Amino acid sequence: MSGMQELLPSLQAEFNRLKSGIAEVYAHHGFQMIETPMIERTEVLLAKAGGDTEKQIYKVIKTAETMDSADQALRFDHTVPLARYTVEHMNDLTFPFKVTQIARNFRGERAQKGRFREFYQCDVDVIGWNELPVEYDAEVIVTLAEALKVLPLPSFMMRVSNRKLLSGLLEELNLEQLSEEIFGIVDHAEKVVPEKTISALEGLGIGTETVVKITTFIGIHGEREAVVAKLRDFGFQNETFKSGIDELERVLKTVKTLAPEIKVEADMLIVRGLDYYTGTVFETIAPDYREIGSICSGGRYENLAGYYTDQKLPGVGGSIGLTRLFWILQNYGLVKASVSKPVEVCVIPITLNELEAAAKLAEKLRRNGKTIDIVLTEKKLGDKLKYAGKIAKYAIVLGEEEAKSGKYIMKDLETGEEIIPF
Amino acid sequence: MSGMQELLPSLQAEFNRLKSGIAEVYAHHGFQMIETPMIERTEVLLAKAGGDTEKQIYKVIKTAETMDSADQALRFDHTVPLARYTVEHMNDLTFPFKVTQIARNFRGERAQKGRFREFYQCDVDVIGWNELPVEYDAEVIVTLAEALKVLPLPSFMMRVSNRKLLSGLLEELNLEQLSEEIFGIVDHAEKVVPEKTISALEGLGIGTETVVKITTFIGIHGEREAVVAKLRDFGFQNETFKSGIDELERVLKTVKTLAPEIKVEADMLIVRGLDYYTGTVFETIAPDYREIGSICSGGRYENLAGYYTDQKLPGVGGSIGLTRLFWILQNYGLVKASVSKPVEVCVIPITLNELEAAAKLAEKLRRNGKTIDIVLTEKKLGDKLKYAGKIAKYAIVLGEEEAKSGKYIMKDLETGEEIIPF
Repeated sequence: MSGMQELLPSLQAEFNRLKSGIAEVYAHHGFQMIETPMIERTEVLLAKAGGDTEKQIYKVIKTAETMDSADQALRFDHTVPLARYTVEHMNDLTFPFKVTQIARNFRGERAQKGRFREFYQCDVDVIGWNELPVEYDAEVIVTLAEALKVLPLPSFMMRVSNRKLLSGLLEELNLEQLSEEIFGIVDHAEKVVPEKTISALEGLGIGTETVVKITTFIGIHGEREAVVAKLRDFGFQNETFKSGIDELERVLKTVKTLAPEIKVEADMLIVRGLDYYTGTVFETIAPDYREIGSICSGGRYENLAGYYTDQKLPGVGGSIGLTRLFWILQNYGLVKASVSKPVEVCVIPITLNELEAAAKLAEKLRRNGKTIDIVLTEKKLGDKLKYAGKIAKYAIVLGEEEAKSGKYIMKDLETGEEIIPF
Repeated sequence: MSGMQELLPSLQAEFNRLKSGIAEVYAHHGFQMIETPMIERTEVLLAKAGGDTEKQIYKVIKTAETMDSADQALRFDHTVPLARYTVEHMNDLTFPFKVTQIARNFRGERAQKGRFREFYQCDVDVIGWNELPVEYDAEVIVTLAEALKVLPLPSFMMRVSNRKLLSGLLEELNLEQLSEEIFGIVDHAEKVVPEKTISALEGLGIGTETVVKITTFIGIHGEREAVVAKLRDFGFQNETFKSGIDELERVLKTVKTLAPEIKVEADMLIVRGLDYYTGTVFETIAPDYREIGSICSGGRYENLAGYYTDQKLPGVGGSIGLTRLFWILQNYGLVKASVSKPVEVCVIPITLNELEAAAKLAEKLRRNGKTIDIVLTEKKLGDKLKYAGKIAKYAIVLGEEEAKSGKYIMKDLETGEEIIPF
């Protein structure tokens, strides 16, 4: 199926190793795993979406009359199901609710290389009850950064901003009515040459001086102190802008405190496309592979589930798009099929008369956590060893004598070395 | 969504623990994990299906023009995707291919308790190249039995038969043309009173003597030797029947050799509904909970992928329907929400001034594999401890003094006991 990842077993093993590694980091940071259905009511899925998302949705239709009649579709991200889940189980959850979902989502994207229609997203979210301090924004960034360390990426950098800054700037410039357009232009700025951004802004008819102010603003990036100083230099007094500075400073400071070794910088180019986000926003780049774009992103949302409940549930979350990332890592030669064979020891009874001894040996080895395959075909020993060589690291051949004596020789199938294990 | 499992975090943790346990047993037995797309072309999915399956399928429609136009649907089991996968990657796989899939499938079943429209199946299969000795049937049965031991079931029994036996009996009685009907009646025999089965057979117009022969046959069950002796007593000379006896005997003998402690018996009532199966068939019951029916089943198929390839690929497989089983275990009180709290230690800085010390402590504990949550809210200590009590086993409160001295007290949140850990 085009646009669907399907891997050979050895590469799948590597994918699963990375996925488990990410899950382990999330768990170690206190995020609880949940699982939501892949099918939701379309009305729920599209409540906050629209545009491209609506176009890319997979609708699901029931062929039997016995199936219920609601209009259904495959989820395209974890956020909508999370909102419904949180509201539905509100009384049984502990807030702040630190939650993770690692599972497949579906989007009917245009078929092209590196774009997947079925893909794993590895999400973390923290959801507050009425309020949630921005320190949790830092916790999400740090947890994602720790999880990214599981991946075979030489280095990466978290780029952080706060949407209140650009919003505050636009308030100051009396450009609120062009907010959507300007956020869009800034969000695309990195994908085009600077002249294009400038001419796009000029195209809004906002005057050169204003354009310069905006381009100066989005050019700001770097260490926390320097960036905060530059932002203060604008001298804007509106609450939105001031609160943006304050939040950005607190988030970056907390990231530094929680995990001093993580590479993080403030960058005003980061705004994230979705107006879903209301405060902190972040993306992640691999500096050695800048062309691949953001490998992990997220942000703060003011209210997770306004569509379902009057209860205010502010949250912050982020996601690693593992399927796409894995594909990229493969393309750069950074991920290879699992080098270790799927089986540790292949136990080969010469005939089925030695099967009992083979089974006992296998059970003993499995109890020690080993992965054991017993060869049950009645082929020539040479053929059995050939099979073993493909799937296992070691082989133990059991003939009549070995079965009787209980003494075995283990053969390293790569080096040919013979080991007497016990 | 009705018919979709959705669990609270603590119960989800227990579900995941069982799922991982099953995966580990499969891996230890040398089965390699693969993952196939959840969406397949409808034509592929329905190639060997029909009837109920066709009615229960979820079709998937693309809303965007950019999406490809093939008729697609959600898979309803792992077998069809496995067949396509094996053929597609044939040249890169090692045969016998021991393979596992643990993932969700979809069926638009009538909404009723304990029936799920989205459900986990935990499959193992062994696929041979041209041939596959029936000893692998035993290996599949043993692997599934070992995996079932992970579940909180007091006991279970594997019931094994071979479809060649009933087929051979029908050949002997010249009833091949009623084969489908009789297999159906036998498959349902356990769900109805014996009189119903008898009258259903009589309804085929086959004469009392013949009905008695069939009911005598399906009444046979028990230990290998006794069952084999009774089957031989029929004195049938047709190859199908004789080969059924031979295979059944070999499979049961090999199960005994591989895992002497597993409860297994031969039972002629087992035929499995699908004509997909051609030899060994098995089901599993929990004797203390017989009413729940089979909790794990499978069998031998002559040719996995005749629809796609001329290459003969005989196989044997079986599956644990984990979602349904988990629901049943819950209903019988055999599974409980994970007793252990999701977080081991909740680290509570009294103010954000102690956050640095808290972060260092958390990092140290995480490096030892512990699950740690740092409380970032600026609430009263009492509120923070209340939160910790809900999600964590222990709490460490960090005030100015603890941060300075590096000496902490760890409090057991259940017993109130105070521990000096380091």
